[in-house]
Amino acid sequence: MTTIDDLPIRDELRGQSPYGAPQLDVPVQLNTNENPYPLPEALVARIAERVAEAARHLNRYPDRDAVELRTELAAYLTRTTGHPVGRAQVWAANGSNEVLQQLLQTFGGPGRTALGFEPSYSMHALISRGTGTGWISGPRNEDFTVDLDAAVATIAERRPHVVFVCSPNNPTGTAVEADTVLALYEAAQAARPSLVIVDEAYVEFSHRASLLPLLEGRPNLVVSRTMSKAFGAAGLRLGYLAADAAVVDAVQLVRLPYHLSAVTQATALACLEHTDTLLGYVERLKAERDRLVDALRGLGLEVTDSDANFIQFGRFADTHAVWQAILDRGVLVRDNGVPGWLRVTAGTPAENDAFLDAVRFVIKEL
Amino acid sequence: MTTIDDLPIRDELRGQSPYGAPQLDVPVQLNTNENPYPLPEALVARIAERVAEAARHLNRYPDRDAVELRTELAAYLTRTTGHPVGRAQVWAANGSNEVLQQLLQTFGGPGRTALGFEPSYSMHALISRGTGTGWISGPRNEDFTVDLDAAVATIAERRPHVVFVCSPNNPTGTAVEADTVLALYEAAQAARPSLVIVDEAYVEFSHRASLLPLLEGRPNLVVSRTMSKAFGAAGLRLGYLAADAAVVDAVQLVRLPYHLSAVTQATALACLEHTDTLLGYVERLKAERDRLVDALRGLGLEVTDSDANFIQFGRFADTHAVWQAILDRGVLVRDNGVPGWLRVTAGTPAENDAFLDAVRFVIKEL
Repeated sequence: MTTIDDLPIRDELRGQSPYGAPQLDVPVQLNTNENPYPLPEALVARIAERVAEAARHLNRYPDRDAVELRTELAAYLTRTTGHPVGRAQVWAANGSNEVLQQLLQTFGGPGRTALGFEPSYSMHALISRGTGTGWISGPRNEDFTVDLDAAVATIAERRPHVVFVCSPNNPTGTAVEADTVLALYEAAQAARPSLVIVDEAYVEFSHRASLLPLLEGRPNLVVSRTMSKAFGAAGLRLGYLAADAAVVDAVQLVRLPYHLSAVTQATALACLEHTDTLLGYVERLKAERDRLVDALRGLGLEVTDSDANFIQFGRFADTHAVWQAILDRGVLVRDNGVPGWLRVTAGTPAENDAFLDAVRFVIKEL
Repeated sequence: MTTIDDLPIRDELRGQSPYGAPQLDVPVQLNTNENPYPLPEALVARIAERVAEAARHLNRYPDRDAVELRTELAAYLTRTTGHPVGRAQVWAANGSNEVLQQLLQTFGGPGRTALGFEPSYSMHALISRGTGTGWISGPRNEDFTVDLDAAVATIAERRPHVVFVCSPNNPTGTAVEADTVLALYEAAQAARPSLVIVDEAYVEFSHRASLLPLLEGRPNLVVSRTMSKAFGAAGLRLGYLAADAAVVDAVQLVRLPYHLSAVTQATALACLEHTDTLLGYVERLKAERDRLVDALRGLGLEVTDSDANFIQFGRFADTHAVWQAILDRGVLVRDNGVPGWLRVTAGTPAENDAFLDAVRFVIKEL
């Protein structure tokens, strides 16, 4: 039988494994930061309706520029941040992963480097490597905030072409202050003209405002977003960005033509029609997240301040053993490889109760 | 106002324009090789049904491995080619463009090269460049068949890591004989272990059998396919490949996780349920294609033998002027930049009549 090793793949891929959380068949899955609330049935019906409309023209290529969808995403950003965003400043793709891949193909790539502050969303490094962009791992403070002095020094020394700022940060839940982003942007531009990407995948769950208004007057700043979390549509794979219109023009040099299917565009538009309902679920999840933080701290555990729909908790001498013990109680959380810490997604009240019960049981045994 | 030139994009992107056919608002659009037959209403209803089902779980990530879809695609290939293909040998992505991009990220990339025989599907070169893969333009004969001696010599001299064979070839319509592919594969393997990709996007329209059976015993051979043409689903963006299972394992090292949305998977599965109806449209289009070839030759024009749902016709001293003159009669065809030649997609009988009327008028004026 032929194996990967027999194939003429690139040397740097040899011995690697595909990215992805193990999805185990357990009653309570709190490991991938999914929204636990299914879309309401009225929205399901509207999706069916809009997709049927789109399917009647499915023999034709989709709108390559996704004009209607970008218009509605811009309206959503304008309404929820108070910062006016137009369609020309918005771009969409199959998940924020594809948005980031397009940005790295345009602003990173062979001979260039990207910097991120780790631990952070591991796809930043993986997509950088996948596009031939050198990866620089920047520092964080002990409390997982960005160590600004060290970060500025790293930027000055390494002069990256792309800088990632994840806020709220995955997997730690930590938000980044606007002043910090501004200082990083200034440092990055001082080192060389470079792109700064603020990944706001989880921003709707934050205690703080979006950093979107920082785009004003900063053409090398990008804010990336997703409909996977706040819109409860991880299955849809719809990511987007807001930036200067020139950045949107630039990614079109590398995007695959017709990358966004007509059914994806139709489904996303239906979801955007139901924004208020979906943001209502976000409020419930924020309350649940806060309840979980308090409960875990009440149990004597350490919890990183969370502005997301997930919580980093610890610290454990044997992280994997605790992960396994919680799993043995029927609850799947995530071991992101941050020594001493685990991550749990805020689920429904019942799921969270099951998780807390499991933790109570497990820490008694420690 | 900021423009692309003000941004720190990669040097090789400077001055480029995005890929894409100009889509003009004219009555008869025969320029992008779309299938002119809308999906039947029964299939539209089934798509709505399956998408609604998927939408009820849209808060969860989609099946990362698209197991059900790959199983059905494998069954389709097995049934239509007589060559047994299993799910493990099939991979799917957002359009064959993304399939090709994943293959180039795995087997091409910086420091590696890909060879194609031009004129051919221009995305082969564009995706190669987009993944940092050096592009080598190989020769064709005057009649647009592959010049095997020259091709083998080019392979021996340049030792590419990836070889593209497009059959039927876009934009010329030319099929490639199995013997030619075998000779190219042998030459490519003799030069170095390398991947040979047979792009069969249009194969359902061919007079000849698929080259899929050549996969047997050739782990470095890949056949790529799409649902855009024969399945009348250009708007769906569903491409796929068949190859040794090890190739499928290998592309998972570079694919973005959860790249294929739940709605895309659901829609594609619905289309596959209606394969027989859709292949019935293919038969109609083959008859229309043959009628167009005969009619154009009857008008004294040169026509390249076509195994696709489009036809290359010429030759014209001023290709652009003829393109414009046909457009002035309300029919949009494609100028692919092949000197002297234009390309027309086989449409409905009425669209084809309109096209032939326009050509009759235009050539009188030449």
